[in-house]
Formats: sequence, C-alpha cells, structure tokens
Amino acid sequence: MFVLAEEINEELSDIKLEYENLRSQLCKLENLLCKENGGEFGLSTRLQLQASKLFNTDQFSDVQVILKGGNHIKAHKMILAASGDDWGVEQFDHVDMLDLTDLRYDVGYALMKWVYTDDFGGYSVQLDDNFFIEMMQAAKVCKLKALHIRCQKALSTMVNNETCERFLKLSEEFDAKILKENCEKLLGKKTVINLPRMESQFERQVTKDTEQI
Amino acid sequence: MFVLAEEINEELSDIKLEYENLRSQLCKLENLLCKENGGEFGLSTRLQLQASKLFNTDQFSDVQVILKGGNHIKAHKMILAASGDDWGVEQFDHVDMLDLTDLRYDVGYALMKWVYTDDFGGYSVQLDDNFFIEMMQAAKVCKLKALHIRCQKALSTMVNNETCERFLKLSEEFDAKILKENCEKLLGKKTVINLPRMESQFERQVTKDTEQI
Repeated sequence: MFVLAEEINEELSDIKLEYENLRSQLCKLENLLCKENGGEFGLSTRLQLQASKLFNTDQFSDVQVILKGGNHIKAHKMILAASGDDWGVEQFDHVDMLDLTDLRYDVGYALMKWVYTDDFGGYSVQLDDNFFIEMMQAAKVCKLKALHIRCQKALSTMVNNETCERFLKLSEEFDAKILKENCEKLLGKKTVINLPRMESQFERQVTKDTEQI
Repeated sequence: MFVLAEEINEELSDIKLEYENLRSQLCKLENLLCKENGGEFGLSTRLQLQASKLFNTDQFSDVQVILKGGNHIKAHKMILAASGDDWGVEQFDHVDMLDLTDLRYDVGYALMKWVYTDDFGGYSVQLDDNFFIEMMQAAKVCKLKALHIRCQKALSTMVNNETCERFLKLSEEFDAKILKENCEKLLGKKTVINLPRMESQFERQVTKDTEQI
C-alpha cells in the first residue's frame, strides 16, 4: 500500500512538471501570437489607424506639404519618413516644408493619401496608366521605394500590345525592373491581342477629401 | 465566306470585351491586394519598422518619459497616441513630459518598449504574474486598452488553483473581464491541479537596451 502511494506520488510529480512546462509554453506562445498577429489591438493596426486619422490634421503636424496650385497638406515627418527618409531634399529631418508643386495636383494629393493610408484616395482619382506613370516618376524623385514598386505592379496589369513598347521605354527610364519584366514577358509571346489603350473603370469624382484642402 | 468573316469578327469583339473586363478586374484586385496585404512594403510594416527604429532616439522626439530613478526615454507623442491619447494626463497633446515614476523601473521601461514594438523587451524583464499585474495596473492608469487586454491574456495563461482567487479579486479591481472569465472557468471545474506560483521561464538579464538609458 505504501509503495503504491509512493508510485502515485511520483507520477503526480511528473504530471505537475509536465503541466508546468505546458503552461510555460502556452504563456510564451500567447506572447508571440500577440506580437505577430495582434489583430484589432496589435501595434501595426494601432499605427495604421493613427496614421489614417492624422491625414491633413493639425495634431502633431510638423511639416507642410505644398501641392500644385498652392494647396497645402498638414503632414507629419515621422509618417512621411516611414515611406522614405529622403524625399528628394537635403536634410529631410530639418525641413518644415516639402514642395510637390512639380507634380500634377491629383498625383501629389494621391501620393500623400498613399503615404497615410496605403491607398490613393479611392474614387477621387482616375487610376489609369498616365496616373501611375506620373506617380512612378514622383516615387523615383522622392525616393519612395514601396510606391515605386506599387506603381510598377499597377502598370504591369495594363501591359498590352499597344502600351508595351511605351512601358518598356519608361521602365528603363525609371529603373522599373518589375514593369520591364512584364513587358518582356508579353513581347516573348507570339500572339498578342490588339486592344485600345485601357480606359480606367474609375470615374473621376470630386470627393469630400479633395474639397477639404 | 463573307458571313463567316463577320461571325469571326463578332466573336473577336466579344473576346476583346471579355479580355478588357478581365484586365480591369485584375487591376482592381492588384490594388486591393497591395492595400490589404502589402507585405514587406505595406504601410503597416513600414510604420512598425519606423516605430521600432525610433525607440528612445532624438529623431522627431517631442516628449520625454521619466521613469523611476530619474531615467528618461526620448519619446514621440504620435507613437504614444497610437496606443492611447489620454495617458492619465490632462491635455496629452500639449505636455512635453510624461511621469511614469510611480511604476517599477522595469515595468515602466517594458511599457515603453511595448508601445514601440508590441513586445516587452524580450529577456530583459521577468515576465511573471507580478510583472503582468503591475503592467495591467499601469495600463488602467494610462488608459491603454490594448495593453490592458494583452496583460489579461498573459495572466489568463497563469491561472491555477493557487493564483485563481487572487487573480479573480484583481480582475474585479482592474475591470479585467477576460481574466475574470478565465478564473471563473477554472473555478467551475471540479478537479483543480494544485501547483506552486508559476515561476517564469525568462531569466532576468540586463540587456543593452537597459544600459543605454
């Protein structure tokens, strides 16, 4: 009887140890999961919401972005710097104004929208090839790598028999490797469907956003 | 022969239209995908990297956080505000100093690390129940909802026969519903494994991070 109790006790100790290990593992995983995939309350969601909320607001604003026509956007260097810390100016950290008046107004505005929201302002701009070409040029000048790639991906969906040659030329001018690859892929095919220049499915529409500034 | 050519022509028109629709759809999806799942170059990744890079640096810093013992951290209101825009002070937007000297030093430091990285500084702190209880208290005082939830989830993995009653009491004190639910779940069970207070698997270790400030 005594031996049995001792055996049971030993087994209990083992189980307790195993249980403790499992719980410790659970705690570690819980922490990892919270970090990697924070969902509604994760850091990336919190920061994205914050950036989107701060677009063109006074709160924490420390730099003005001037657009064509003299319109300006109240901006935040920290958010701008998340996309690029050069912006085509010397000493980005110390400027209090960024001049984007070389860009078409809708392109400059959409560029700022992209910086704050990863989107170009929805239906407020016509997302056609000309838009993305101008945007790619802006991305090159301001040294915004993520935007440069984004524009190439968008243009790559518009490569056809008619646009191909022009896009290929542009891809060399703007050092756009992804676009170049996609143009060359089309050129490599024997049969090419001949289509007119792609018309965007988006209608130009003045949004509240545009009216605000 | 003429009729055949006409038929083929009609078919070609149909195919062209279909092709155009597909391409338009592709362009839309490409844009959506870039926005929703930007990967390496998406906004959320860009912002997270930026926040992590800015922890305790002068760049763009506009507020000092004072920790117990007089140590301070160079902070950024915009990043702090992503986790909460109250921080237990009046007019958070206009303060240039946040006093966290009421918190244990390691708790205050880990809190700041969490704000910038969604993590508590890895092995620099002992992630045991006392740590998460103090952190939950801090989250309540500073009104940091995401941190409050995070601490409850961590503590929920540590609920056992010995901690249960204490955690349940704390959960009421700190309005911690998730923790409360988990304690009540355990109390509802008939068999409860009796274990000593959980010892953390993390060793206390002074990291470079801590030495820097």
